Amino acid sequence: MEKLTLEKVRHAQTVLADVARKTDLIDAYQLECQAQVYLKTENLQATGSFKLRGATYKISQLSDEEKKAGIIACSAGNHAQGVALAASKAGLTCTICMPDGAPISKVEATKALGAVVELVNGTYDDAYEHARHLQQASKATFVHPFDDVDVMAGQGTIALEIFEQLEGVEAVVIPIGGGGLIGGMAYTIKTLYPTIKVYGVQAENAASMANSVAMGHPMRIHTVATFADGIAVKTPGVQTLALVKQHVDAIVTVTEDEIATAILTLMEKQKLVAEGAGATAVAALLFNKLPVAGKRVVAIVSGGNIDVNILSRVITRGLITSGRQHTLEIALEDKPGQLVGVSRAIEQCGANVIRVDYTDSDPNTSVTSCVLKVGIETRGFSQIEAVEETLRAAGFNPTSSSL
Amino acid sequence: MEKLTLEKVRHAQTVLADVARKTDLIDAYQLECQAQVYLKTENLQATGSFKLRGATYKISQLSDEEKKAGIIACSAGNHAQGVALAASKAGLTCTICMPDGAPISKVEATKALGAVVELVNGTYDDAYEHARHLQQASKATFVHPFDDVDVMAGQGTIALEIFEQLEGVEAVVIPIGGGGLIGGMAYTIKTLYPTIKVYGVQAENAASMANSVAMGHPMRIHTVATFADGIAVKTPGVQTLALVKQHVDAIVTVTEDEIATAILTLMEKQKLVAEGAGATAVAALLFNKLPVAGKRVVAIVSGGNIDVNILSRVITRGLITSGRQHTLEIALEDKPGQLVGVSRAIEQCGANVIRVDYTDSDPNTSVTSCVLKVGIETRGFSQIEAVEETLRAAGFNPTSSSL
Repeated sequence: MEKLTLEKVRHAQTVLADVARKTDLIDAYQLECQAQVYLKTENLQATGSFKLRGATYKISQLSDEEKKAGIIACSAGNHAQGVALAASKAGLTCTICMPDGAPISKVEATKALGAVVELVNGTYDDAYEHARHLQQASKATFVHPFDDVDVMAGQGTIALEIFEQLEGVEAVVIPIGGGGLIGGMAYTIKTLYPTIKVYGVQAENAASMANSVAMGHPMRIHTVATFADGIAVKTPGVQTLALVKQHVDAIVTVTEDEIATAILTLMEKQKLVAEGAGATAVAALLFNKLPVAGKRVVAIVSGGNIDVNILSRVITRGLITSGRQHTLEIALEDKPGQLVGVSRAIEQCGANVIRVDYTDSDPNTSVTSCVLKVGIETRGFSQIEAVEETLRAAGFNPTSSSL
Repeated sequence: MEKLTLEKVRHAQTVLADVARKTDLIDAYQLECQAQVYLKTENLQATGSFKLRGATYKISQLSDEEKKAGIIACSAGNHAQGVALAASKAGLTCTICMPDGAPISKVEATKALGAVVELVNGTYDDAYEHARHLQQASKATFVHPFDDVDVMAGQGTIALEIFEQLEGVEAVVIPIGGGGLIGGMAYTIKTLYPTIKVYGVQAENAASMANSVAMGHPMRIHTVATFADGIAVKTPGVQTLALVKQHVDAIVTVTEDEIATAILTLMEKQKLVAEGAGATAVAALLFNKLPVAGKRVVAIVSGGNIDVNILSRVITRGLITSGRQHTLEIALEDKPGQLVGVSRAIEQCGANVIRVDYTDSDPNTSVTSCVLKVGIETRGFSQIEAVEETLRAAGFNPTSSSL
């Protein structure tokens, strides 16, 4: 089997010059981590993720005959768009099989990049089977999302760019799904600078690579319920696992809440939209999962293709956990003027009412009282306390609610 | 009065090298504008906006004696953080007066950058009066947010960077508040390349510069209700107005809805968080307000400091207007099994229920029926139609609601 070499990664860099962006490396002092953190912004890459790199280099290495037969890939997300743009730039025909539950925005984005999209009824695995079937029939080249030397060489170019952009790097933190990104990068980093630490991060709910490293061979996991869908890979690659075992210093996991906090923090502090997978490396740093205090660390923000419905929920959850949205529940006596009193207390404290639910038939309350739920926008926990204090001073008895 | 010169702007660039980031210029083909649009990402500048540039250069030009007396500024937003970081990097003491209604996040960010923050009861104008009063007493230097030659020279450096980053620029689109950004940039652009078009963009609700250009002198406006708060300036500067009259080809305005759409589009397509003011130039391009079809255009994304509560509302509004959230209102007969039928129809179409409101006492409906409101997440208008179709086929009569 062909091996990854530094020459290949360097060659990939010259090939990518015309297609992929050399993404910005941003000093993220606003994150206030214990380490000195820089962000490699692959979410700002064309197609919104690093996947374009590996796909472009893979396609460039095909023979003329292979190129004529076109490209096939299977993906519910970033790989689809990466392959579509890479094929389009190379002038090749391209078919992408996607599970029919894929977000319409990703299907449309892939079509807009010139690919033929085949929606396959079922899961990713069903789409994969269909893609393999099509590939047998058409002799087109199947571009694997990660377990391929050329794909990994393309992803490895991110490491070369980092070394051009920043001196004195002491550690690099990289999200892991199938292992293509970390495989290519870890190989490149350790070959050039063996003392730089390379850390991988997985979602706790989809830690297939961590499990596989522990067991010594690729392990399939069953639960992949994580909103870091970009790295929810059931089985890592054979080649990627070998590189990870050899070159990665440690793999840590992050929870769904930690990922959500990282997404919100990246938006607020760095003005960057990251998808769940793309925020895992930052999550590991924010929650001190790695021994990097005081060190100069690069975190890879690997992608930004997050569904806006999900982003909306992440923000709402973040607002609640940081005290900027709150719901008060107040049992009111059933007599005139009660609403006025509550409204006045909230207004006095400068909080903003955004939702009211007033129910007179809750079987859990006495027949002479009603329950008022008020959603408010606040500046933080101290303002919430001020509102509750003022309500109590006015004779009400507010409790928190989960409306 | 001292005049702006190209030498000053070039000198500012050398001074800024150690403090401000040379922000990325990003090909925004995903925006699918009629023009070939590039984004100058000053939202990714340190402190989240371009304001750091002008403040840094202004401070660098003070005498040693002036530096010893320290810095005073007044701002509810970006200028506060820009001045605070600039003063901190120069080792000067710095007091920022802010209206006490300023978002806690901005107050905290300004403090974190080393400034003393004085919260002044009232509006921006009250805070300004207080700052002027403090300045008289302390002899500290007041750093004006826009009407100052050194401040404008600092902002003009953005133009120099653009010309280093991209060839063949045909037009530059720039948000206008007080006029410091466009004054410095337009002067620099037209002095170097008189044929490049320079366009300014204001929020329709706060078009003080557009009005002032029309009248020939600075005009004060009264209505400044816009969520582009970063450019909600009541009166433009005297010096900035003179430069705008001389160097800007046209000023257009954008509505609140257009700004909201631009914010959402920048998040979804470009993975960038922009504040209202920062999205106005992109809004003008998305809504074809400028004669730039087919041209190579740079839009300045001037800042990204948007309150997350507001961002959350922008997203929700955008989801509704693009058919990805919808509320159905269905009058149900008051008999068992009705909820099952509705739920099943929605599930059949693959839509996701996110909110239910079921009321049995609406005086607008007949006594034998109830009103069910169901909030659903959808993939687009076609899925909403499919849900409504399926509901009708099952004997229900859904209408749209504004729950």
